[in-house]
Amino acid sequence: MSEANSQSSPCSVGYQGVKGAYSEFAAKKFFGEKCLLRPHKTFKEVFDSLDEGKIRFAVVPVRNSVTGGIREVMDLLFEREIRVTGEVTLKIEHVLVSLPEAELKDIKYVYSHPEALAQCERFLKERNWVVYPSYDTAGSVLEIKRRKLFEAAAIASEYAAKLYDMKILLRSIQDSKDNYTKFYVLSKEEKVPEDSDTTSVIFITEHVPGALYRALGAFAERNINLLHIESRPIRDQPWNYSFYIDFEGSLNDQKIKDALKDLKKRSVWLKILGSYKSH
Amino acid sequence: MSEANSQSSPCSVGYQGVKGAYSEFAAKKFFGEKCLLRPHKTFKEVFDSLDEGKIRFAVVPVRNSVTGGIREVMDLLFEREIRVTGEVTLKIEHVLVSLPEAELKDIKYVYSHPEALAQCERFLKERNWVVYPSYDTAGSVLEIKRRKLFEAAAIASEYAAKLYDMKILLRSIQDSKDNYTKFYVLSKEEKVPEDSDTTSVIFITEHVPGALYRALGAFAERNINLLHIESRPIRDQPWNYSFYIDFEGSLNDQKIKDALKDLKKRSVWLKILGSYKSH
Repeated sequence: MSEANSQSSPCSVGYQGVKGAYSEFAAKKFFGEKCLLRPHKTFKEVFDSLDEGKIRFAVVPVRNSVTGGIREVMDLLFEREIRVTGEVTLKIEHVLVSLPEAELKDIKYVYSHPEALAQCERFLKERNWVVYPSYDTAGSVLEIKRRKLFEAAAIASEYAAKLYDMKILLRSIQDSKDNYTKFYVLSKEEKVPEDSDTTSVIFITEHVPGALYRALGAFAERNINLLHIESRPIRDQPWNYSFYIDFEGSLNDQKIKDALKDLKKRSVWLKILGSYKSH
Repeated sequence: MSEANSQSSPCSVGYQGVKGAYSEFAAKKFFGEKCLLRPHKTFKEVFDSLDEGKIRFAVVPVRNSVTGGIREVMDLLFEREIRVTGEVTLKIEHVLVSLPEAELKDIKYVYSHPEALAQCERFLKERNWVVYPSYDTAGSVLEIKRRKLFEAAAIASEYAAKLYDMKILLRSIQDSKDNYTKFYVLSKEEKVPEDSDTTSVIFITEHVPGALYRALGAFAERNINLLHIESRPIRDQPWNYSFYIDFEGSLNDQKIKDALKDLKKRSVWLKILGSYKSH
């Protein structure tokens, strides 16, 4: 159990999307039923609420096993002063949702979040539907219900379909059966959870031969297992990249402290996102 | 001048989008006016045409300096047997395009390719327009013209606006002034251009500590400059990644041949995309 999870004080948790979003489901999985879950329209608004102290925690998707990193969230992790204090992984099973009266043969339009649409790319290519990207999966279900769109379907979770009393036309429509999304639990608190076993950082290296190799040496020389590495362009610096890495170990361990001291020397910029218990 | 460019025989070049697309502009920049340029609806269809010998070359965007790798193209480079034989970089200046009779105050809808929309994210967030992703930038201009959509605007190049005799409502609307897209010139021919100075490969490492570090050592130990590294999830293998790297040097150089021999030993899978003259 994480620190965040073991807090007995009342807590408020922000997420992107409306009630029924995958992020809300992830937040429930991590915090249980005791926290107040607060919906936000955009990822930026979630980070703003955290910065302004309106919420104590946030749960945001950071990467999907099929489509890769969630770029907007990666950029916000780069820009904002936050800490990652937890991790949740969800198996994603998308369903096709419509009004209770609608039939599959009537569907002409599909609404969903761009990431969900990308995860159902092959499914959608086989059909001649007009595709409308929207802010979130559950929000698309709600929109179809409110506006009584008989020819429209949403791609969302079974949970969202049931929450809004809608009809499930098709199940498990994502292209890959093994579709997982990893969420970070964020807070402004610096405390490192005692049971943490994974650490995430972002760094930028010099533009010289072997710079990334030497940076990764800070881990390899100590036999620290790299779990993930991903690059992102740096805004307004064409062809310059930052590297996001997750590795085994906690900021409470001396070996990790030493590795990060080394990494700091071998890079031009280093941001420690935090340590947390892997899920 | 590249090999491809110096061919005197007639050549046909495929690209994604309609006439006026950034890819067509990149193809013209590389091949000049002497080649037959053939539009395709999707990236997949471009690769299919190349596989089937319907076109001799293809020009496809591989990454943008602001939004990062073009995921669909990266996945096709992973899956298909092709060679990269050239590179073109375009400075991207998006304009907002409408029917000649339309005014900015009338605009309610915006059409463009998802990558172009992502590059104008901040611009679009300040406006209350409904955003419709489409197959390509120039195709959106053409669609507005054909359907006489007086309340719609497209995000495209000045070149596309002029080609279709449309009105430019606003210029340089991309979020970053320094917005560049890199295109690869692809062919099925194995020949390495004599003036090539850059090489691109994809590889997969073992899941053990230091695997990526050791793989990159094949370059660092020889003082070979790594120009770019990017990871992509491997389809149907959750949390497993392939690495795309560009580095200085040509497949014609002995040092590069040795480095790749080493990399092959230190990875579980290696695909050489090709060598080409950097742009």
